[in-house]
Amino acid sequence: MLAIMEKESSPCMLVSREFQNENSCIKVGDAVFGDNSIPVIAGPCAVESRDQVLYIAKSVKKAGAKLFRGGAFKPRTSPYSFQGLGEKGLQYLSRVREETGLPIVTEVLDLSTFDLVESYTDVIQIGARNMQNFSLLKRAGKSKKPILLKRGMAAELSEWLMAAEYIMEEGNADIILCERGIRTFATHSRNTLDLSIIPAVKKQSHLPIIVDPSHATGVRDQVFSMACAGAATGADGILIEVHNKPKQARCDGAQSLYPDQFAKLMGTINTIHDIVKKNKGKRK
Amino acid sequence: MLAIMEKESSPCMLVSREFQNENSCIKVGDAVFGDNSIPVIAGPCAVESRDQVLYIAKSVKKAGAKLFRGGAFKPRTSPYSFQGLGEKGLQYLSRVREETGLPIVTEVLDLSTFDLVESYTDVIQIGARNMQNFSLLKRAGKSKKPILLKRGMAAELSEWLMAAEYIMEEGNADIILCERGIRTFATHSRNTLDLSIIPAVKKQSHLPIIVDPSHATGVRDQVFSMACAGAATGADGILIEVHNKPKQARCDGAQSLYPDQFAKLMGTINTIHDIVKKNKGKRK
Amino acid sequence: MLAIMEKESSPCMLVSREFQNENSCIKVGDAVFGDNSIPVIAGPCAVESRDQVLYIAKSVKKAGAKLFRGGAFKPRTSPYSFQGLGEKGLQYLSRVREETGLPIVTEVLDLSTFDLVESYTDVIQIGARNMQNFSLLKRAGKSKKPILLKRGMAAELSEWLMAAEYIMEEGNADIILCERGIRTFATHSRNTLDLSIIPAVKKQSHLPIIVDPSHATGVRDQVFSMACAGAATGADGILIEVHNKPKQARCDGAQSLYPDQFAKLMGTINTIHDIVKKNKGKRK
Amino acid sequence: MLAIMEKESSPCMLVSREFQNENSCIKVGDAVFGDNSIPVIAGPCAVESRDQVLYIAKSVKKAGAKLFRGGAFKPRTSPYSFQGLGEKGLQYLSRVREETGLPIVTEVLDLSTFDLVESYTDVIQIGARNMQNFSLLKRAGKSKKPILLKRGMAAELSEWLMAAEYIMEEGNADIILCERGIRTFATHSRNTLDLSIIPAVKKQSHLPIIVDPSHATGVRDQVFSMACAGAATGADGILIEVHNKPKQARCDGAQSLYPDQFAKLMGTINTIHDIVKKNKGKRK
Repeated sequence: MLAIMEKESSPCMLVSREFQNENSCIKVGDAVFGDNSIPVIAGPCAVESRDQVLYIAKSVKKAGAKLFRGGAFKPRTSPYSFQGLGEKGLQYLSRVREETGLPIVTEVLDLSTFDLVESYTDVIQIGARNMQNFSLLKRAGKSKKPILLKRGMAAELSEWLMAAEYIMEEGNADIILCERGIRTFATHSRNTLDLSIIPAVKKQSHLPIIVDPSHATGVRDQVFSMACAGAATGADGILIEVHNKPKQARCDGAQSLYPDQFAKLMGTINTIHDIVKKNKGKRK
Repeated sequence: MLAIMEKESSPCMLVSREFQNENSCIKVGDAVFGDNSIPVIAGPCAVESRDQVLYIAKSVKKAGAKLFRGGAFKPRTSPYSFQGLGEKGLQYLSRVREETGLPIVTEVLDLSTFDLVESYTDVIQIGARNMQNFSLLKRAGKSKKPILLKRGMAAELSEWLMAAEYIMEEGNADIILCERGIRTFATHSRNTLDLSIIPAVKKQSHLPIIVDPSHATGVRDQVFSMACAGAATGADGILIEVHNKPKQARCDGAQSLYPDQFAKLMGTINTIHDIVKKNKGKRK
Repeated sequence: MLAIMEKESSPCMLVSREFQNENSCIKVGDAVFGDNSIPVIAGPCAVESRDQVLYIAKSVKKAGAKLFRGGAFKPRTSPYSFQGLGEKGLQYLSRVREETGLPIVTEVLDLSTFDLVESYTDVIQIGARNMQNFSLLKRAGKSKKPILLKRGMAAELSEWLMAAEYIMEEGNADIILCERGIRTFATHSRNTLDLSIIPAVKKQSHLPIIVDPSHATGVRDQVFSMACAGAATGADGILIEVHNKPKQARCDGAQSLYPDQFAKLMGTINTIHDIVKKNKGKRK
Repeated sequence: MLAIMEKESSPCMLVSREFQNENSCIKVGDAVFGDNSIPVIAGPCAVESRDQVLYIAKSVKKAGAKLFRGGAFKPRTSPYSFQGLGEKGLQYLSRVREETGLPIVTEVLDLSTFDLVESYTDVIQIGARNMQNFSLLKRAGKSKKPILLKRGMAAELSEWLMAAEYIMEEGNADIILCERGIRTFATHSRNTLDLSIIPAVKKQSHLPIIVDPSHATGVRDQVFSMACAGAATGADGILIEVHNKPKQARCDGAQSLYPDQFAKLMGTINTIHDIVKKNKGKRK
């Protein structure tokens, strides 16, 4: 079906179930994305200080998170907003890995900082605004590290899979898709989390797909419910923003969970996942 | 906050948490919407024959459904599409209640058939296209029967609550809200199920809110996941289309579950609900 | 193409170019919609008093408006907002016709007031919220008066034409379509005026289509430009809200033009229309 | 108003009317964007051969186009689609300038090819997908050449102006904004051309804004009307795709005008522009 969308597309996309029927499994540290487990990635929106990331990392690890996230290079709507700590931020993230053993997920913004980010991180995140930054996708395709590819705010399913195809076609098959909300008319949440894309992706592609309710909703009170909903759809992972002092966060504080909220959420996510997994077995 | 949206609005809306802090509980037969249970409404899109509805009703009752749904008057995009069996359809629904004890949910389309539909049904559904049919809302406000008010395809949260306010202001406080998907650019599902509105409604209003993944997705393969996701958000009920012969259904066959799929789904929904309920207790 | 959208649709829709190749021309008073002229409908959002409508009617007539509009029954999001003057409003509109000779356009909200509105008005408006109120459409199809059918805020072109088909199938072929903006994520205007639907409608249907920039934008400063843009697309008419005291208007004052702004706009619209008409001749 | 959107934003944005009240005028060859003229940019979607661009360039110049456009580096949804001729394409564009005197507009996709594209072109286009590619914006801000900044498919007005602010803050004030359609639910056109953003931008910013009806609609039959509509809104320029053999075009043939259609369009655009300009004078 995708093949007929573009005259010049190959008859069978690499990211499609036609090309590979079994699920792709992507191993990062202790976590595996795609093997019917539900690893959780947690951390603050931005790396702000060494103490901040260490404190949060220890608390999310204790609660069961498998990977730590934090932005060192931040894509900001305004040029006058905090742009991230840059390499210093990456060094703090390295320190988190050393002290906690948690693998790191951090975003890369452009070609000029790709090598640098790649050298520090375990998973390279490509953000929603860069989903169709084709040069960045091609460079990611040459990396040996897994890519977390967020869905663009206005991206159709077929466009998202084509973006993944750019990466896979260059040789990197370790791609984790991440639904993070689409732009709609609704204003009760920042974006509209489109969970029905989880079963739709799983039908068409072998790639794992995770859910980011923090950026999607932008509202702390909705994150808990939407994380549970994501687990219930059979997602291959959840990404949650956690901050110890959300009110003082340099970005996205309003959507960050407190560490104790996160700990409670972890328990619920895991229990829901177990049920869905068990029943999925029965369904077949 | 809602009060400031309309210059002439009352200082405190009847449907708001400010007016009534505790959840509204709406009892229909054995089911209660709003008491932290998760009653399921099931049945075909349209009433097609007596045998059809009786067969489906017995199977969904066996699986645990608490109410039966089916359309006798159908709102159809084309004037040449099947418009429903009318009063004969209502009679078949009565027969379902007699034989199974399941209360009936069916849609009312206009003022001229309101009395008729009201006389047969237990819950009166107002569909997405009629969410701002203010005359219909006012008439519903004078009914003694509960109203199932679907969200319009392009309705903001505040507009939806204002539509409920039209009903409540006329005297009928038994209103069940139903999220059924909004219109977005995405094409992998018919509409985009906007689950983040569940916690948003619960924050602002005391009314119960349920989820309809069948009309939202329009795709059978997505209904199971989205029903589970709905349960995980803490919804007060789920509405599912079930048909014994979906391929021959006169409308919406492509989204209807087979009775055995529905039975499996019921188990999963209930287990997820139990976890969410238990953890919700812990959260407070 | 439309025929394949609905399994049960007739092979050829009555509103389609296949059924009738030449443009439908709908005569109301001095105005004709569909004959390559560009009649302008003007007036306040709501009828507020006899003096108000008479004052505005005289000024818009002087500026060249061919029809007068004003709401007597208003569809309001909040039950606590001004709902219109009802029959008294219709009487004031009659008085406008008597004194100015301008035909009247006013909205009908439901079946119960249809006969009343029909008896007073020259053109019956069905608003965006009622575009898929199928009972209302069928009743409109039995009227001898022209119907102004606004596009729903989330309506696809095919759904809009199907709504018109409901009217025409009942016997009333005098249908004027009206684009009034769709709901999108954009917030600089109330809705997004979708002018590309003008050529798209003209390709598929013989019905005239007009443009309402006032409700679409909701912002006075945008109305002038969008009215000109509507004329430039080859629309068959323009609908403009005009109020002598916008700041005191009981609804939609922020989008209403002052009478002198309207007079200037009329000149520009007519000149643009002449050019487009002349060049259209050349194109063929 | 923009200033309060971002906590850390400067009190007054450089692109705002508060910072600079008079319109920015950007001169390129014979054309000026922002001085109340309406220069037209025309050319094929992609540079395909030397003969193709020379043939089209001569015909659009004859019709009155002031700049020539053509893509040498193409952002394509699929990695298997034609990606452009690269530097060879830039060389063909240079040849167009030599032979016709028309300044060149072509798109830059990334940092690695920025210097190359900059060395060949007169105006550097940043496409919709790169509107929030902040590294690219910063690099553009260091260029001495004017930037054509297209609106992202899901970009709010404030986000678009902030993207321009990234460029201007680095020192380049020669920015031409270009509306090219937003993503909505509507399917009769590829995107929805949002013309009401023209007056909205002009109110908030001193930057010139042009309209691209070709990419917005994706349908040849709609381009003529939407180009006229753009002129009628008071846009500072129009961008039109023209191809001599649209059916054989390597991309976007379905939306390209034939040279003779383009020539007729030029006349209409200019006449509409004259009226709007004259009446604008009167309005003040």
